Amino acid sequence: MSHPFQPSFKLGILGGGQLARMLALAAHRWGVEPWVYSEKADDPGQEVTRFGVVGSLSDKEQLKKFLAQVDMATFESEFLNASLLADLSKETKKPISPSPELMGTLQDRLTQKQLLDDLKIPTAPWRRVDDAEDAKIAAKELSLPLVFKKRRFGYDGYGTFVIKTSVQLQEFCSQQFPNHDGFIAEKFIPFSRELACIFARRKKGEIVNYPLVESFQKDSRCLWVKGPVKHAKFSAWSLKFKKLLAKTQYVGVMGVELFETKQGLLVNELAPRVHNTGHYTQEAFELSQFDLHILAMINQPLEPGLSPKGFAMVNLLGDEKPKTRWDVTPGIAVHWYGKKESRPGRKMGHINAVNSTPEKALQGALKARKRFSI
Amino acid sequence: MSHPFQPSFKLGILGGGQLARMLALAAHRWGVEPWVYSEKADDPGQEVTRFGVVGSLSDKEQLKKFLAQVDMATFESEFLNASLLADLSKETKKPISPSPELMGTLQDRLTQKQLLDDLKIPTAPWRRVDDAEDAKIAAKELSLPLVFKKRRFGYDGYGTFVIKTSVQLQEFCSQQFPNHDGFIAEKFIPFSRELACIFARRKKGEIVNYPLVESFQKDSRCLWVKGPVKHAKFSAWSLKFKKLLAKTQYVGVMGVELFETKQGLLVNELAPRVHNTGHYTQEAFELSQFDLHILAMINQPLEPGLSPKGFAMVNLLGDEKPKTRWDVTPGIAVHWYGKKESRPGRKMGHINAVNSTPEKALQGALKARKRFSI
Repeated sequence: MSHPFQPSFKLGILGGGQLARMLALAAHRWGVEPWVYSEKADDPGQEVTRFGVVGSLSDKEQLKKFLAQVDMATFESEFLNASLLADLSKETKKPISPSPELMGTLQDRLTQKQLLDDLKIPTAPWRRVDDAEDAKIAAKELSLPLVFKKRRFGYDGYGTFVIKTSVQLQEFCSQQFPNHDGFIAEKFIPFSRELACIFARRKKGEIVNYPLVESFQKDSRCLWVKGPVKHAKFSAWSLKFKKLLAKTQYVGVMGVELFETKQGLLVNELAPRVHNTGHYTQEAFELSQFDLHILAMINQPLEPGLSPKGFAMVNLLGDEKPKTRWDVTPGIAVHWYGKKESRPGRKMGHINAVNSTPEKALQGALKARKRFSI
Repeated sequence: MSHPFQPSFKLGILGGGQLARMLALAAHRWGVEPWVYSEKADDPGQEVTRFGVVGSLSDKEQLKKFLAQVDMATFESEFLNASLLADLSKETKKPISPSPELMGTLQDRLTQKQLLDDLKIPTAPWRRVDDAEDAKIAAKELSLPLVFKKRRFGYDGYGTFVIKTSVQLQEFCSQQFPNHDGFIAEKFIPFSRELACIFARRKKGEIVNYPLVESFQKDSRCLWVKGPVKHAKFSAWSLKFKKLLAKTQYVGVMGVELFETKQGLLVNELAPRVHNTGHYTQEAFELSQFDLHILAMINQPLEPGLSPKGFAMVNLLGDEKPKTRWDVTPGIAVHWYGKKESRPGRKMGHINAVNSTPEKALQGALKARKRFSI
């Protein structure tokens, strides 16, 4: 006798970029239907599912209709209208994870800093800056150089200004103020390395993390990641950080960017989602950050599984003068995003490598990178 | 300056079951557009791509239109109309890999046996059986017990008859003849274990293989696979087998089922496609059999990459009295096929595990299997 069987539920994914794409690919294997909602039918996220929905992320009625269609929803970017999503989630009785409330807290650098301060998780010293006077007070109290960051919608270096001299400060103030969005000013932290770590928590409460990794940035864009990184202070730090996930009843994957400084590990930025610095998990662990995010959504056990001794990820960024060369290196995994247009610096895909040491893995991945011109 | 970029081509996949699904999922990551052609829009293969096409695999005009749409095509089952596909490939000038000609040879157990004999690759002794008289001659020459196999369209035990006594032979003959399809009779081989191996070849000529594995079957259905299996005769055997791939200019992945006997390794069956006994590669190797098949299609280097010391795969077959229980065990990877209906014995998904030994991996996977009732 046959019988109908449907273990899955419908997971809405708001946004259609590469993170949505890789979440959707992971969802399929776990029997979860990924319903990808984004602006175009040929967005990277929509190409990998039959359940694509074309719509605007700011259209209340369309979003409401979409939430009504699915069992629950998640997102690939924290820069959405958090209060609208909170309202729609209540109206439609469809959970959104991570919660729109926390999305609201984290998408604003001011409230993100406050949350970290409340939980005594070390970050660079900072001040709120709404106008030129605030900027001058910050410069006086924290002393130059300072990093000014727009409170919202900054990413990959956009909305970030490093100010080293009082002349630059003057210039910055006359260009940026008056300003509705507001800034925070951070003390410039001389760091030895940028590090990162991926955490995941599910409703039942368990929290896991992947290892600490090094992330190399140029012009505020991540070029590569390698790991695992051994760090004397990581264990104590991660215990403390897990309290943030527990306290906020976080559900899903969270990416954390860190500075390695003389004073210890400082949080640079939190992202309530799967993160570029966690893409290596696709080959380096049995279960990737995308798998864990999906498992957190359906409240199933989180366990990354075994890992090799070394791993690396190199982003495939659009070249200045591309020759449209695309050759695979043996034993190297390519993850291609299916974008229809390349621009210099645009994230077009990434390469993952594993090996006996992090350095060997990185060397292999960087060598493989040279066989692409995109 | 942005510029249009499209490294991929459109790969047609004929068939929409779980093999098409996992091929399509692999295609996406390599930037290959998987165009899945099958009978229903909610087939497992169509759910994981925006490029699903609904059509019949026996409809000449529809197939021709489909081939015209894509750059090349492959298939998930060798039981298609091989001569029709050969004609359409010529007409539309779209390559089909593996070739329809070889599909034709392998889908008929008679010509498959002849091919193996020609290349001196050992199999069980056999005779062609078209009628009751042939059956009796086979019984005389090979002696009972015999295994009668329909020449075409047999799978998972369908079309296979084990005949132990002359009374059974009499019964078999009166039930099955006259018969248009024809049979082969094989000498019943007492084997110690069933083994299997996945090979891949690309146009450029290189041939790779994953390790030998043990495959455990019950009622002609694969229950589990574990590996790697060390076997003194495997290395010499695989060198010989690779000649078959070179000689037939094979392009793609091929699954080989073997019997371990006192006389050595005997080929039980060849399948010109990704194979159930190779699903473990998804977690056990950097690149899976699905990745390698896609890479073979786009003529890129084939290299499975690193592997753990032990791995196992357990099929999730439909239960007799399902309780619709679906719980994930930590550290175990689930691959779900998204079928809308369960039947006892139907392949609904599979579980992959890796560990320090094959036995530990299998134990883990079998334990995880108990948490499903489907």
